[in-house]
Amino acid sequence: MSNLIVVGSIGLDTIKTPFERRVDVMGGTAAYFSLAASFFTNTGLISIIGTDFPQNYRDLLKTRGANLDGVEIKEGKNFRFETEYIGNMDERNDISTEVNVLGDFNPKLPESYKSAEYVFLGNTDPEQHLSVLDQVTNPKLTALDTIKLWIDIKLDKVMEAIKRVDIVFLNEFEVRQIFQETNLKKAAMKCLDMGPKYIVVKKGEHGAILYGRDTHFSIPGYPLESVRDPTGAGDAFAGGFMGWIAKTGDISEQNLRKAMVYGSVLASFNTQNMGPDMLKKINIEDIQNRYNEFVRMTHF
Amino acid sequence: MSNLIVVGSIGLDTIKTPFERRVDVMGGTAAYFSLAASFFTNTGLISIIGTDFPQNYRDLLKTRGANLDGVEIKEGKNFRFETEYIGNMDERNDISTEVNVLGDFNPKLPESYKSAEYVFLGNTDPEQHLSVLDQVTNPKLTALDTIKLWIDIKLDKVMEAIKRVDIVFLNEFEVRQIFQETNLKKAAMKCLDMGPKYIVVKKGEHGAILYGRDTHFSIPGYPLESVRDPTGAGDAFAGGFMGWIAKTGDISEQNLRKAMVYGSVLASFNTQNMGPDMLKKINIEDIQNRYNEFVRMTHF
Repeated sequence: MSNLIVVGSIGLDTIKTPFERRVDVMGGTAAYFSLAASFFTNTGLISIIGTDFPQNYRDLLKTRGANLDGVEIKEGKNFRFETEYIGNMDERNDISTEVNVLGDFNPKLPESYKSAEYVFLGNTDPEQHLSVLDQVTNPKLTALDTIKLWIDIKLDKVMEAIKRVDIVFLNEFEVRQIFQETNLKKAAMKCLDMGPKYIVVKKGEHGAILYGRDTHFSIPGYPLESVRDPTGAGDAFAGGFMGWIAKTGDISEQNLRKAMVYGSVLASFNTQNMGPDMLKKINIEDIQNRYNEFVRMTHF
Repeated sequence: MSNLIVVGSIGLDTIKTPFERRVDVMGGTAAYFSLAASFFTNTGLISIIGTDFPQNYRDLLKTRGANLDGVEIKEGKNFRFETEYIGNMDERNDISTEVNVLGDFNPKLPESYKSAEYVFLGNTDPEQHLSVLDQVTNPKLTALDTIKLWIDIKLDKVMEAIKRVDIVFLNEFEVRQIFQETNLKKAAMKCLDMGPKYIVVKKGEHGAILYGRDTHFSIPGYPLESVRDPTGAGDAFAGGFMGWIAKTGDISEQNLRKAMVYGSVLASFNTQNMGPDMLKKINIEDIQNRYNEFVRMTHF
């Protein structure tokens, strides 16, 4: 039984940074999310992979507690994505996206996933979000993320999904785009007007903000001296956040604040090395130490 | 006797925002700084004004506790500055700068200023910074701010002044420019290597960071639904910061963190109306309430 489930891509990424280029690194929302969440709980993945997806990547996910019962294996090539980070790595050029087997993915939840209490809908097609929401029977906390692509081409479905979840995760550009409002706070309030109890606005090196109807919590970015690869930071954030919530079973605002910090801890670690390399190396003590640093750097 | 002194411009600003245009608003570092600091202590100003500087502006500064003994009045026109904020007001076009009487200002401290314990060097000519530092006899905490203009044309003097102060206030672009380092933390460490005990990096809506050799404190921006005019926010920040320190006489790191919050409170209020209008309206209770909001929005 998986109490935390995620729908999202499992990819083979080719990443170029000012430091190096790596081909077919394991990537995708479901991979980063489950690795980050693994420090707190096991995750049930809902995804699809091609027959060329390496066995050792599958093994890695499994040894880190991922349940792959919801991962369909389809004859054909895996989803692939190539990108290049430029300058200070706050900009990137997407070079190619090969959808491949991910193209007509229709998520079908294994019986053991349906009673999951914690549900994260990664930045895939919003119709997949709606399908997963239709299949879960007992959600205690649902959350979604999306990207510019879906806002551009399926805004009505994005909106439909937003109405049905408890928390929306967006970066500052996406929230402005969806709600057509440059002021972040006003845009956040427009989001809450649609139904969600909270919105998390991610601001990269500037941290993240949790807005509720009557509350606001801001967490700064962790001051890294060296960023090696920003890929997957948002998914690692969500994995740390939802993993902590699933582990504690506590959805009070006070605990959501702690989840914001754990999300920031996992996201910051993730950027310190290529692909998910850093998530493979760290342990719960590293995470707790950085959490404590967040306490020291924010309290007065 | 003035225990807190500031050297900086007193200007007549013409400001255009997407909302309105106002001519000859009182502005300049020394004006914003002393108004912001006035909630905590009186400030001795070191500046120069022209004979056309309105009497009612001088009266306003005085009623707010400013000591103008160090403000020279010179035959001629006052320093004037015209700027236009565009779009979301995170960009501005400077339309004109008339230096006028500020051109050959040579700060000469009244006797009553020389024993000041708290000294703020606004973003004027770094040679004025060095001159003020030469004249004070008993400083407990000195701080400076600068701008791109001086970094472009007098970097050696900027560096000389940085070496001689305890705290450097810079925005994120200035710190990257001076220390030729895009990574903020590395740039901050390069600054500390030169002598200062702390550097405050201001990031506008994203808040501010206090870096010490072994410490780091991050304060988020206050989430405003409406920004009317960003002019003077940095000076109001410095005024709130230094005013709090001068009032308490405590330069411990714990108290510098509180000063960061008071600086953020004053800066955020200042952007909510044109010119220094908001600083004229608020009272200490408003300030304390917003300080408490900062506690609520950052603690976990």
